[in-house]
Amino acid sequence: MSTRLSSPQDYAGLLDKYDTWMFDCDGVLWHGDRIIDGVVEVLEMLRSYNKKVIFVTNNATKSRKSYKGKFDHLGVQAHVSHRPKDEIYGSAYAAAVYLSSVIKLPKGKKVYVIGMSGLEEELHEEGIAHIGGSDPTDCTLAPFSLAGFILDPDVAAVVCGLDTQLNYTKYSKAFQYLTRNPDCLFIATNEDSTYPSADGLLPGAGSVSAPLRFALGKDPICTGKPSSTMLDCIKAKIDYDPERTIMVGDRLNTDILFGKNGGLATLLVLTGITAESDITGSNSSPIIPDFVTNSLGDLRTIRKSEK
Amino acid sequence: MSTRLSSPQDYAGLLDKYDTWMFDCDGVLWHGDRIIDGVVEVLEMLRSYNKKVIFVTNNATKSRKSYKGKFDHLGVQAHVSHRPKDEIYGSAYAAAVYLSSVIKLPKGKKVYVIGMSGLEEELHEEGIAHIGGSDPTDCTLAPFSLAGFILDPDVAAVVCGLDTQLNYTKYSKAFQYLTRNPDCLFIATNEDSTYPSADGLLPGAGSVSAPLRFALGKDPICTGKPSSTMLDCIKAKIDYDPERTIMVGDRLNTDILFGKNGGLATLLVLTGITAESDITGSNSSPIIPDFVTNSLGDLRTIRKSEK
Repeated sequence: MSTRLSSPQDYAGLLDKYDTWMFDCDGVLWHGDRIIDGVVEVLEMLRSYNKKVIFVTNNATKSRKSYKGKFDHLGVQAHVSHRPKDEIYGSAYAAAVYLSSVIKLPKGKKVYVIGMSGLEEELHEEGIAHIGGSDPTDCTLAPFSLAGFILDPDVAAVVCGLDTQLNYTKYSKAFQYLTRNPDCLFIATNEDSTYPSADGLLPGAGSVSAPLRFALGKDPICTGKPSSTMLDCIKAKIDYDPERTIMVGDRLNTDILFGKNGGLATLLVLTGITAESDITGSNSSPIIPDFVTNSLGDLRTIRKSEK
Repeated sequence: MSTRLSSPQDYAGLLDKYDTWMFDCDGVLWHGDRIIDGVVEVLEMLRSYNKKVIFVTNNATKSRKSYKGKFDHLGVQAHVSHRPKDEIYGSAYAAAVYLSSVIKLPKGKKVYVIGMSGLEEELHEEGIAHIGGSDPTDCTLAPFSLAGFILDPDVAAVVCGLDTQLNYTKYSKAFQYLTRNPDCLFIATNEDSTYPSADGLLPGAGSVSAPLRFALGKDPICTGKPSSTMLDCIKAKIDYDPERTIMVGDRLNTDILFGKNGGLATLLVLTGITAESDITGSNSSPIIPDFVTNSLGDLRTIRKSEK
């Protein structure tokens, strides 16, 4: 049973319990291009209490640097690329950190990319050599023939994210790397079946990796929410105590499950995909957040009452 | 327990029992470009006994007309496009027949194609209007935006086969048709995870439909083996008595399962993917053919002994 928060005392109680606050972005901080009321003040309030603030997104098309542009545009403070102050963790960054810092890919090894420049940028920043991706040689609809294909013996992983330039050549090459070398890792940035574009839903990163999943008959290692591999990647970069960490999100099957998989407390906000009716009544989800509040903006009442 | 055939009497017994003989092609009639020893004689012998001969293939990139070129090249007699004498049934043709003759798509309706010219040719021959596929507008790696997309209200089905020009635009459009119109049918020519190219395995038609399967969270209607929809399509075109029909194939999970799903007798040949050890011993498959013989060519002994 979730605890429903509403009074200034309820919110102040959270502040006492949790030092690290992790946030999903879309549906929690903003809707598309519109900031949610009170969010900027709440984040400032958390910082004023010396809380650690982390943004966790499955968006794998943008690097953190380019994703930060959205924060700046909407007036939300966020630090990136000033280690150890990195505050934005995307699933593309998590894939790069997984390779550099979790499994520690040996020098000289590289990855074959199905994905976009944001993913390549993160790999580059983590010192991971890569081929494929946005390389014009592989961004083609020309027929692919195995006869002319030379396997790069240094490829030790295939990393697959959302790629709007996906094609049969990329899938065929990735399939060769994954089948001819049984040790080659199969990594997906995230398993989201759809991607919320400005004008509606389109196939997401999980759909982009689906042909390889089907051809291989196996699932990838996933570095996005709800996989706890994402937390392993955050852990590789910053210090936090899971027992004093709370994950705030709007989706039960990604954000809240992610928190639960990682042993974090969870706070569901109702400003996004999940409605009140999804968590009450007989058909409610088996994924139960610890806390529920209408909006992240509700936490403003702490400031008002405390100051 | 399968019956192992070896004597001329064994083979003559089959001839008494079955009037319609259905054959898989690769691994049964030929290996790539090499005909299997004795096959031409056996097919001629079956015809001389007035047996109905049907070739059933999951290849969805070629129309029957272009697939017949392979039969001609290897000296195997096969009739196409002289109804009711059609003898080659491909999964692309089955998809077209499913639309024209099984569900009887109303005039004025059309299908959105992810697939190649062979599939389009079969749709055209069955009088099914289609868009997408090899249309240069949809064979592009240019960014796709929903803002500029106009849904064709006459699209009543998405048909997906092997398509080496697959791309994000095709998947995005197909996804719109399938989600914005809940009655839109989702059809896949076949579910083969891989495709045996001349130089090795590449992702197959099942892998090409996988992104839609993942994005929609549902499986397509499949018109290829082992689905009995393929048999419904053959039934729509020719007369045969399932009790006097035998399916000959080299794959347990496509050919033999297809025969079993359709209530046909099944004969496994060991000239293709299945080895003796796959059907004997403790790890053998749960799919058990009625009869097993080394090669289709073995049936030549009937001719020798009878004449």
